[in-house]
Amino acid sequence: MNGATHVPLTEDTQRKAEAFDAVDVIRVKRDKGTLSPEQIDWVIDAYTRGVIAEEQMAALNMAILLNGMDREEISRWTAAMIASGERMDFSALSHPTSDKHSTGGVGDKITLPLAPLVAVFGVAVPQLSGRGLGHTGGTLDKLESIPGWRAALSNDEMMRQLEDVGAVICQAGSGLAPADRKLYALRDVTGTVEAIPLIASSIMSKKIAEGTGALVLDVKVGTGAFMKDEASARELARTMVDLGTDAGVRTVALLTNMSTPLGLTAGNALEVRESVEVLAGGGPSDVVDLTVALAVEMLAGAGRDVAADEVRAALSDGRAMDRWRAMISAQGGDVDATLPVATENQQILAESDGVLTGLDALDVGIAAWRLGAGRARREDAVQAGAGVEIHAKPGDRVVAGQPILTLHTDTPERFDRALEIARHSITVEAEPRGDVHQDLIIARID
Amino acid sequence: MNGATHVPLTEDTQRKAEAFDAVDVIRVKRDKGTLSPEQIDWVIDAYTRGVIAEEQMAALNMAILLNGMDREEISRWTAAMIASGERMDFSALSHPTSDKHSTGGVGDKITLPLAPLVAVFGVAVPQLSGRGLGHTGGTLDKLESIPGWRAALSNDEMMRQLEDVGAVICQAGSGLAPADRKLYALRDVTGTVEAIPLIASSIMSKKIAEGTGALVLDVKVGTGAFMKDEASARELARTMVDLGTDAGVRTVALLTNMSTPLGLTAGNALEVRESVEVLAGGGPSDVVDLTVALAVEMLAGAGRDVAADEVRAALSDGRAMDRWRAMISAQGGDVDATLPVATENQQILAESDGVLTGLDALDVGIAAWRLGAGRARREDAVQAGAGVEIHAKPGDRVVAGQPILTLHTDTPERFDRALEIARHSITVEAEPRGDVHQDLIIARID
Repeated sequence: MNGATHVPLTEDTQRKAEAFDAVDVIRVKRDKGTLSPEQIDWVIDAYTRGVIAEEQMAALNMAILLNGMDREEISRWTAAMIASGERMDFSALSHPTSDKHSTGGVGDKITLPLAPLVAVFGVAVPQLSGRGLGHTGGTLDKLESIPGWRAALSNDEMMRQLEDVGAVICQAGSGLAPADRKLYALRDVTGTVEAIPLIASSIMSKKIAEGTGALVLDVKVGTGAFMKDEASARELARTMVDLGTDAGVRTVALLTNMSTPLGLTAGNALEVRESVEVLAGGGPSDVVDLTVALAVEMLAGAGRDVAADEVRAALSDGRAMDRWRAMISAQGGDVDATLPVATENQQILAESDGVLTGLDALDVGIAAWRLGAGRARREDAVQAGAGVEIHAKPGDRVVAGQPILTLHTDTPERFDRALEIARHSITVEAEPRGDVHQDLIIARID
Repeated sequence: MNGATHVPLTEDTQRKAEAFDAVDVIRVKRDKGTLSPEQIDWVIDAYTRGVIAEEQMAALNMAILLNGMDREEISRWTAAMIASGERMDFSALSHPTSDKHSTGGVGDKITLPLAPLVAVFGVAVPQLSGRGLGHTGGTLDKLESIPGWRAALSNDEMMRQLEDVGAVICQAGSGLAPADRKLYALRDVTGTVEAIPLIASSIMSKKIAEGTGALVLDVKVGTGAFMKDEASARELARTMVDLGTDAGVRTVALLTNMSTPLGLTAGNALEVRESVEVLAGGGPSDVVDLTVALAVEMLAGAGRDVAADEVRAALSDGRAMDRWRAMISAQGGDVDATLPVATENQQILAESDGVLTGLDALDVGIAAWRLGAGRARREDAVQAGAGVEIHAKPGDRVVAGQPILTLHTDTPERFDRALEIARHSITVEAEPRGDVHQDLIIARID
């Protein structure tokens, strides 16, 4: 009976037990209306309890993606997700806390040098991280290439390490915003990941529940980023800054370039090696510059105004390295162990003389993923040594036969498809028109 | 990891086995694209096989509801649903076939007199019907108030009855467009019923699979109809006529008024009684007029041009009644049995003198439903005798104290809520402005 309407169905039954009917709520957003605070609280709670079915939440998500939510709706949605689980509390610490979140990019290893660097200046960094999926690596995957290092800490262990070392990078407990975990898994299979209200509330519900006092967001823009264009990235950044502010967390966002990989490595152990170079006072300038810029923001958010030069000095004089060693050791990592190296490698050489005008971040990310650095499904393992080394960056002059990239893997049958996309990442022009240079930091939003 | 993109996930895994990835297909429609014929075939087949999960189909349905489908997409979608099951074939019959479908209205018992009336003129009517849900009753529910009548026939029984009697009203087998059954149940709980492409393909996939040669669509417009406004009803009618035509079924649609109930009864046995009055040459003029108009269209679709007066004569002279008796008897129904009458009734009286300017179809439909004539859930039973009798129609002059409606039920505790909405259905004005009359047939679309 296609003429049947749904409304009466619920009149006698569900409404007795539940505050709302799922179909009524879906219809509000479908018809471009505004969800009431009570409807939002109910949706998140009922979904967590299983009263709203996956297919109902999928339909609501698609309606949100296509019809949007306003600031009050997003704020309430985020608060409801936080309320679905536990909240951490760092108020007992003797230091203020500050955290950073990146929306994910290729070669983005910044968390590794950043957390110990900020700790040098008396601000504690509780960095709860995840594993990677798809072409962007996960911070925990990178650190797990260090022999002995473990990602899972109890809350007590984390608090003790924050007090003693001032920085911890560990696995987020399953108690934080459980509604988000369920919702993200659903969005992933229903084409509804790309909804700014849902992205923003997903990130911010976890960060706010985590209890940090200040938060710096690194919102990536470009081919290798989730947000391909600046307008979307700005909207996401603005939405998240508003959410943090509404929740009493001092929040600022940097929009940063992700059209080309960050630094000279993409892959787990490769990125740890590069991070250690930065902590030793060296490393690629883009990684150093972004680490310093984010550290300055994180410190300012926690009430410590430290100049960039002062921050930079802590990389040169070994103080950040000492914190790194303490942080890794506290989680069982052998800081003096040799990092894993892949058994096989192949180089891609420049085919002609000219200027490298493009090295596409997404292509390099997919190449690293195909080599075994990333995973296709949550349950997959990653190869510690796999990935891509970069020998020339956009703007560099190259000569035919010079290596541009080196690809690493333990499973040489992966080379074919990885080489194909890695070659595709490279653009060399004999006479480049205009300036190849792109700003690393595009904008600051607070 | 919110920055993770879904694309690479499928690259190594699902695509090996499946032609498409569900998320890719969802994204096409989400981003206002056009689904390819191959994608549509795959979606319907994969959903029927369970490869596309309910939550994925829910997200796709919401994207279709909000972003639409073009004529080719809808046509292919319908063809794919037909291909999901069996097709019936009436080509062995000695008569041509013609069928009618109503989008559902309050007091719409037209199928009951219409099927035997058309059969009188040598055109066979294979009317596969359903049960009601919500405020519009189902044809099978109405006929089941006749003692002994059974809805379920085998294909052989149906063919034999079509050959011998020329008309059959029975339950649609589960083999016709099984994808539609699954999809409709999903749409019902996800707020995606109201998508014209999905409504049209749902109706037409079953009607085309049923194998009728010609089809007349009665598309209702008004408060008691699924389509509340004429523009939506026209769009639905146009979409369905196109689908029928594309599939080689001679299809025409009438847009008819459903702002007030059809006839003077809403309820199962009450409507059978009224239908028998029509077959006996009496009955309310709107029911007679619409029955005759639809019969003329059904006969024309089957190549028989019969004038309205000739059709009307078959109601007056007993030929249609003979066919009715044969049709009901063939399915075990006792045509001479007394129809069930509800044990309790209450009247609603006019509160003042004036003209009845409105009797709202939806309100009357919900009143009948609350009295027990309809069901809230598929598994509920209906009361044969429950429903609403109408004593005055819009345009009629009424005096205070005169009965307007009589409510019938076997369960008097239902009266309170039914009386409330039934009273709400009535508008009496002392001095009506303008003409109360509304055309029964609003438009014809072919």
